[in-house]
Amino acid sequence: MNYLAKIYVTLKPTVNDPQGVTVKGGLHSLGFKSVNSVRVGKFLEVQVEAASKEAASAQVQEMCKKLLANPIVELSRFEIEETKR
Amino acid sequence: MNYLAKIYVTLKPTVNDPQGVTVKGGLHSLGFKSVNSVRVGKFLEVQVEAASKEAASAQVQEMCKKLLANPIVELSRFEIEETKR
Repeated sequence: MNYLAKIYVTLKPTVNDPQGVTVKGGLHSLGFKSVNSVRVGKFLEVQVEAASKEAASAQVQEMCKKLLANPIVELSRFEIEETKR
Repeated sequence: MNYLAKIYVTLKPTVNDPQGVTVKGGLHSLGFKSVNSVRVGKFLEVQVEAASKEAASAQVQEMCKKLLANPIVELSRFEIEETKR
């Protein structure tokens, strides 16, 4: 079976986000003065083959731990859905 | 009122994603052979002040168009929720 995992990787709330600060500055210069804060993270779509949704979920959890997110400064969460291809 | 916009920026399906291909290669070398494809996008959390949810939504739409996503190669979508702070 094929599954699509949508993975969200964000910096932990206590970690500085210079990229977010830069984007916020950019938005302010464009006139969006009402923006209070911007945090930038990653969004990954991973197509994975597995016997069951649980197996796919376990694999994706491992992937996040081993490669996709840095557990020291980042948090990751994901959703899994079955797909046709 | 304060609103949190969760913005997802992804490459259009027809656009090459070398970063995704590299991550897929990394996952394969780590033993995750069942991964068929990886696409990498951005996930932004923007705190914005606005009079209503509709006003916030209109602002975020403009931000995506003007700065956050490149409409030539990227797609953006977002969700808005009211927040306490």
